[in-house]
Amino acid sequence: MRAALIHRYGGPEELSVETVPEPEAGPGRVLVDVTLAGLNYADLECRTGEYLRFPLPAVLGVDVVGRRREDGRRVVALLRTGGGYAHVAAPEAAHTVEVPDGVDDEQALGLLEQGATAYGALTLAGRLRPGDAVGVSAAAGGVGHLAVQLARELGASRVVALSSTPEKREYLLSLGADTVLDPADPDLAGRLAESGGLDLFLDSVGGPVLRAGLAGLAPFGRLVSVGARGGVEDAFTMGELTERSAGAQGFWLKHVLTDRALFEGVADHLFRLAAEKRVVARIDRTVPLSGVAGAHRAMAARETIGKVLVDVHREE
Amino acid sequence: MRAALIHRYGGPEELSVETVPEPEAGPGRVLVDVTLAGLNYADLECRTGEYLRFPLPAVLGVDVVGRRREDGRRVVALLRTGGGYAHVAAPEAAHTVEVPDGVDDEQALGLLEQGATAYGALTLAGRLRPGDAVGVSAAAGGVGHLAVQLARELGASRVVALSSTPEKREYLLSLGADTVLDPADPDLAGRLAESGGLDLFLDSVGGPVLRAGLAGLAPFGRLVSVGARGGVEDAFTMGELTERSAGAQGFWLKHVLTDRALFEGVADHLFRLAAEKRVVARIDRTVPLSGVAGAHRAMAARETIGKVLVDVHREE
Repeated sequence: MRAALIHRYGGPEELSVETVPEPEAGPGRVLVDVTLAGLNYADLECRTGEYLRFPLPAVLGVDVVGRRREDGRRVVALLRTGGGYAHVAAPEAAHTVEVPDGVDDEQALGLLEQGATAYGALTLAGRLRPGDAVGVSAAAGGVGHLAVQLARELGASRVVALSSTPEKREYLLSLGADTVLDPADPDLAGRLAESGGLDLFLDSVGGPVLRAGLAGLAPFGRLVSVGARGGVEDAFTMGELTERSAGAQGFWLKHVLTDRALFEGVADHLFRLAAEKRVVARIDRTVPLSGVAGAHRAMAARETIGKVLVDVHREE
Repeated sequence: MRAALIHRYGGPEELSVETVPEPEAGPGRVLVDVTLAGLNYADLECRTGEYLRFPLPAVLGVDVVGRRREDGRRVVALLRTGGGYAHVAAPEAAHTVEVPDGVDDEQALGLLEQGATAYGALTLAGRLRPGDAVGVSAAAGGVGHLAVQLARELGASRVVALSSTPEKREYLLSLGADTVLDPADPDLAGRLAESGGLDLFLDSVGGPVLRAGLAGLAPFGRLVSVGARGGVEDAFTMGELTERSAGAQGFWLKHVLTDRALFEGVADHLFRLAAEKRVVARIDRTVPLSGVAGAHRAMAARETIGKVLVDVHREE
């Protein structure tokens, strides 16, 4: 089969398209004939070896949509150990979900990883209730733009979206955000605290933005961080949280994936919203397998808005 | 009127019963002819000047039950600036709630301050959901024993109570705790994590107990601290919370009291449960006004279990 892989950690030039053996299913795994693979920011750090260091040579890519070989069913799969940029992937069966007819390949793939993160952070970690005022940082990003839409669908009374450019803020208003703010606003905390403050602030940035989100919480409000990296070093004392009856909650998608019933429930809810077009994943572009290196460069330069997909059967 | 007051900060011997002028109602306040005053641990620290420093001479006491002078209605009042150990108190009208017929004076007073704290911590801060597994530290204490009962009433699937003596642990089983643990258990975190871990851990102790509670959380679980003192210096990084999809939430009753509708809703729910005997505040003893100093000594020596009340019209 054809795949885009690296033989050593490094820049985008390390990615080459080659013919390699198909993966084996192995215990607990299934084979998927891939239609589209997703590109994620984490892939850039897997490529350099800064984040997860897959054994070399490594086929990168942590999510795919395709057909399960054993029954031809259309599935999306999350691949915790890579292997997505290829004609065939071998995800764990437990990390694979069927895609209903009303959801196309692009939306299924665009939605699952980032949508499950946004949904889990809002509902499982944040315990969002109808009527909550919700803030979202990096709101035009992969998780953020889905969180804005999901917060509305889950009954938020108000959605406050943070984004750094006027174009992105315009886009967020079109998604249904009630208020858009510039994270560089010198009085960001004060702006977030307006109208009684936020009941839930979803952050993936950390640092001053996370601090402003915490300061902008209403009593009994909670900050939820999905930052695999952003925010990890931010610290709190219980005293400062108690002083304001505020909370800080972490969310990691791993804890959804390790609970099959929970993962299916989350995916099911996301796909139902997608089938009704009530939540739409933004797709930036679809590149051929030979375009993966260029797409890595574009993502690193922050030129993309929305998910980048790879048509693994195209090479140019 | 007669009152127990201090002229300077110090030991229990500073408390003397004297005849003093009645307080004035002033703007936003009402007069209450006191039937019973409550003794609280915070009073001991108000007496020494370690916690709140009321202007001297000071009548201590932060909760009373009695009759509102303007209409003779039976009310419980919280007094953020003291004044409870007296024939007449002048609480803020907004911190006063009527007591329904089915709830006697002792239960109304025994329930309001500690019950609103337990209820608010579980529901407002903790967002307890039916089916949650709930842990409670210092579970035989004023807030704790009500939290154990409330958690059950609110649909907890399992209540794990921590208490330091076999007698108290026996008592907690009688209240409906499913499991009782000794907080000195060297594997406390491991014991809390059994059966899938806790969805909510209510702590008022801090330090190693708070740390064990955090370590014993299930994914998406949250620690809620009601420690005005216990736990204030305990610190977390967002990274360690995200690593476990765990949260830390503070709760301070002040944020309920400043929202009249919320305070009324909480009191109403507590009184309904009390009227049906589904939640019962434990009363340790009722002392005469002249017995306040002795009661302070007993509380300092941890000889009391449950609320100590003062019959302000009795002197011996």
